[in-house]
Amino acid sequence: MLTYICLLKHPCMQFEIEKALPVLERTPQVVETMLYGLADEWLHSNEGGDTWTPFDIVAHLIVGERTDWIPRTLIIVGEGNKEFVPFDMKGHIKEGKGKTMSQLLDEFKVLRKENLAQLNTLDITDEVLDRTGFHRMLGTVTLRHLLASWVVHDLTHIHQLSRVMAKQYDEAVGPWKQFMGVLGGKR
Amino acid sequence: MLTYICLLKHPCMQFEIEKALPVLERTPQVVETMLYGLADEWLHSNEGGDTWTPFDIVAHLIVGERTDWIPRTLIIVGEGNKEFVPFDMKGHIKEGKGKTMSQLLDEFKVLRKENLAQLNTLDITDEVLDRTGFHRMLGTVTLRHLLASWVVHDLTHIHQLSRVMAKQYDEAVGPWKQFMGVLGGKR
Repeated sequence: MLTYICLLKHPCMQFEIEKALPVLERTPQVVETMLYGLADEWLHSNEGGDTWTPFDIVAHLIVGERTDWIPRTLIIVGEGNKEFVPFDMKGHIKEGKGKTMSQLLDEFKVLRKENLAQLNTLDITDEVLDRTGFHRMLGTVTLRHLLASWVVHDLTHIHQLSRVMAKQYDEAVGPWKQFMGVLGGKR
Repeated sequence: MLTYICLLKHPCMQFEIEKALPVLERTPQVVETMLYGLADEWLHSNEGGDTWTPFDIVAHLIVGERTDWIPRTLIIVGEGNKEFVPFDMKGHIKEGKGKTMSQLLDEFKVLRKENLAQLNTLDITDEVLDRTGFHRMLGTVTLRHLLASWVVHDLTHIHQLSRVMAKQYDEAVGPWKQFMGVLGGKR
C-alpha cells in the first residue's frame, strides 16, 4: 500500500473542506463509542491534580460547539468587529453541572450536527478560507486556520481521552508499561 | 460530578475483567468510525520516516488479535510451556499486503469478536488472573498484566491514530498549533 511521502516537507495535507468535514462529522460517534455506558471509574477519573476526566473533556467539547468554532466562523465571514470573544477554558465546569455523561454525549452530537449544517449553508470558497479574524493571544488568523484547528481540536481530545483512560491502568499493566506509548513507553 | 480522588495513590483502578471487556469490545467500532471511508491522505500518511500510517496501525491491531492476546492467554491458562512466542513488530507489513482499509477494519472486527467470545469461555477467577507466563524481554507476567495490557494497547493505538491524523494538519492550523496538545502544544 502506498504511503504518502512528502519529499519536500512533512506534513503533506493542505486544508480542504471536503476532507475536513468527514472527520468533524464522526467525532461525536467516536467519543460516544469510547465512553457511553462505561463504569464511572473510567468516566470520572483524571490524570491527577486538576487534570480533566473524560466527563470534563466531553463538557469542554460542548462549550466549543456553543462558543468557539461556528461563532468565530461567523465573525470571520461577517462584516462586523473581527475580534473573537475569548474562549472560557473553565466553561466545562458549568456545562457539566448536574448532567450525566449520557446527556453530554447526546448534546454534543446534536450541537455538532447543527453546527455542521450551519457551516454547509456558507459558501466556503478559497477566497472565504483566506478571510481573517483577530485572536487576542494568537493575532490574525484565517478561516482556514480556524477550521483546521476544529479538526485538530477534536483529535487532541480523542488523544487526551485515550491517555486519561489508559493511565487508570498504569499499574495494572505491570512490566508492559515500557512498551505502551500512551503511558510514556517506547512503542 | 464526582471525580475519583485517589488519596493514597494515582491511578485508582484495579484490573477487573467486567470493566475491561466493554473497552475491548468497542475498539473495532471506535477505529472504524475514525477511519472508514476517509480520503487516502488521512489513511496512508505517517509522521515521517518509518513511522506508521493509520493503515499500518489497523494491520498491527489484527496481528495482535491473531498472535498475541488470546494465544498468550491460552499459554498462561494451559498446562504446557509458559514461554510466549515473540511478537512480530513488522507483522503488519505482511498483514496489510494487497488489502484495503475497509477489509482490514472488517477483519479486525471479526477477529476481536471471536477472541472475546473465546475469552468468555474461560472462567477468569482471581486465581486464574494471578497465573503467569514468561515473556523473553519482560520476564514473568500475570494474566492480569496481559489483559490490562490488551486494553491499554487498544488505547495506545487510538492515541497514536489521533496523533498521526492531527500531524497532517500541523501547518494548516497556523498559530493555533501552540494550543494543541496533540501537536505538542500546551492545552
